[in-house]
Amino acid sequence: MSLSLNQRTTKRWSVAEAVEGCVRHGLEAVGLWREEVAEQGLAESVKLVRDAGLRVSSLCRGGFLTTPADPAPGTTGPAQGGTARRAALDDNRRAIDEAAELGAACLVMVVGGLPGVRPGEPLPSEPLSADPDGVRRPFSRDLAGAREQVAEALEVLAPYAGERGVKLALEPLHPVYCADRAVLSTLAQAVDLCLPYPEEQVGVVVDTFHVWWDPRLFEEIARAGRRIASYQVCDFLQPLPADVLLGRGMMGDGVIDFPPITRAVAAAGYTGDVEVEIFNADVWAADPDEIVATMKHRYAQVVSP
Amino acid sequence: MSLSLNQRTTKRWSVAEAVEGCVRHGLEAVGLWREEVAEQGLAESVKLVRDAGLRVSSLCRGGFLTTPADPAPGTTGPAQGGTARRAALDDNRRAIDEAAELGAACLVMVVGGLPGVRPGEPLPSEPLSADPDGVRRPFSRDLAGAREQVAEALEVLAPYAGERGVKLALEPLHPVYCADRAVLSTLAQAVDLCLPYPEEQVGVVVDTFHVWWDPRLFEEIARAGRRIASYQVCDFLQPLPADVLLGRGMMGDGVIDFPPITRAVAAAGYTGDVEVEIFNADVWAADPDEIVATMKHRYAQVVSP
Repeated sequence: MSLSLNQRTTKRWSVAEAVEGCVRHGLEAVGLWREEVAEQGLAESVKLVRDAGLRVSSLCRGGFLTTPADPAPGTTGPAQGGTARRAALDDNRRAIDEAAELGAACLVMVVGGLPGVRPGEPLPSEPLSADPDGVRRPFSRDLAGAREQVAEALEVLAPYAGERGVKLALEPLHPVYCADRAVLSTLAQAVDLCLPYPEEQVGVVVDTFHVWWDPRLFEEIARAGRRIASYQVCDFLQPLPADVLLGRGMMGDGVIDFPPITRAVAAAGYTGDVEVEIFNADVWAADPDEIVATMKHRYAQVVSP
Repeated sequence: MSLSLNQRTTKRWSVAEAVEGCVRHGLEAVGLWREEVAEQGLAESVKLVRDAGLRVSSLCRGGFLTTPADPAPGTTGPAQGGTARRAALDDNRRAIDEAAELGAACLVMVVGGLPGVRPGEPLPSEPLSADPDGVRRPFSRDLAGAREQVAEALEVLAPYAGERGVKLALEPLHPVYCADRAVLSTLAQAVDLCLPYPEEQVGVVVDTFHVWWDPRLFEEIARAGRRIASYQVCDFLQPLPADVLLGRGMMGDGVIDFPPITRAVAAAGYTGDVEVEIFNADVWAADPDEIVATMKHRYAQVVSP
């Protein structure tokens, strides 16, 4: 395994700057984000990573497949029902195309939360769900239905990815994000979802922040085996900051015991890159070169098996 | 099933006031907390609930069984190792005695987080865990070891509870509290822990806030069966407030779809009280009588199967 910089760790760096930073610090791989790739330009991003001789350890991210399912006639506002579903699938096809262009090892899939719940935002106001009023809900509490939507979308996207040589990497997110970011909450659930597909089409992400607490973690890493498409590391901070999205810390600053997880991922057969992906206001405020230096040091100190 | 007021929902009410409130609002049961019982006096609390003809649906809470395990000679500060372990067990024996006096249906057990991590507080500063310095750590990242401590403590406490006619109710907490409040993170884990003991000694709590996200929830409720010792309800707010402890909302204000869970708990054989336990700054600031009235209304509207 070898260390990779996920560019969101050094949030203020463009693709060009992240590529230069990786080269400057002797890293062989970089994880890219679609938004930054779009800003740099896809063709230029491809040229930058190729010229630098870097691997693209992942492209982040596809997903957000859980769309409001029941359109009402004459409804205004955001896309719903078939329209929203088609838009989500189209966007994921574009993400797959971009991952293919970049030669990314995988496309990370954050599958989406309850339909109509927007990440980090208050719930839309709505009548109580038991009200027998027949009014369409602006968000849905149907968790099982949302999970079913993810499985159905995979039936469409997995073959599309397979034809383009792209592996979809399903990322279980910490259960604290179940409502607004990912109804995929455990590694077991992610492994179950990918098993119907060929190994080269659908795999899973093991991100320490999201799975460290799971009593079944080590059994599920072993069961995932060669389905592990990405190993991402960062620490779980205690207490979490007010915005729970930013509770990801530099390895060693939180509560996670990394070496047993790293050993288990290696024992499962994973030989890819180890991406450091940190969403954290303090990290983002610091000098990116210092962050990369710290990341290399901490990786050797607390993550390696 | 019948509705019960967990007194932390009406935080400013003493035991006497909560008992009066339950009677005034036609509730048949109350869930009590040890701190408030101590303020009222144990004997007086017993008399109050008996005279009012109320059931005590639970006593909250025992637990916090995960203590720092490796004392260093000459160490000062909080109790550690054997001393901390003995103090935790002694406190739990007292909690069991109190539950017996009150005739509580169960003693709710919040098992504790990583040893040395205090609820809601920043981590103690410490050398990085990979430092080969041999210095005792002020907190431990050994999650598996902490879970083992819980199992070992149960071996001592379950028979003690059984002799006094008290049922320990193991409460899996949402994984967001794994580091600082409970290393017991899933219903599956709680069921596994209680199976070695007689049904009347150890059961589990199903609290909607903590388990709603679990992909295995319905299978595990069925497997728990008559081990379900308490069914607690409140909603999961979105987004969570800055203090995640206070992210519990009035039923209907968050993202949980209650009726399928209530039906599953009933189908598993649970016939006890349904406690409403809400930790929420706005609820605590409101008039307790209004909160109880709202709770009754919402229970009928969104929780009943």
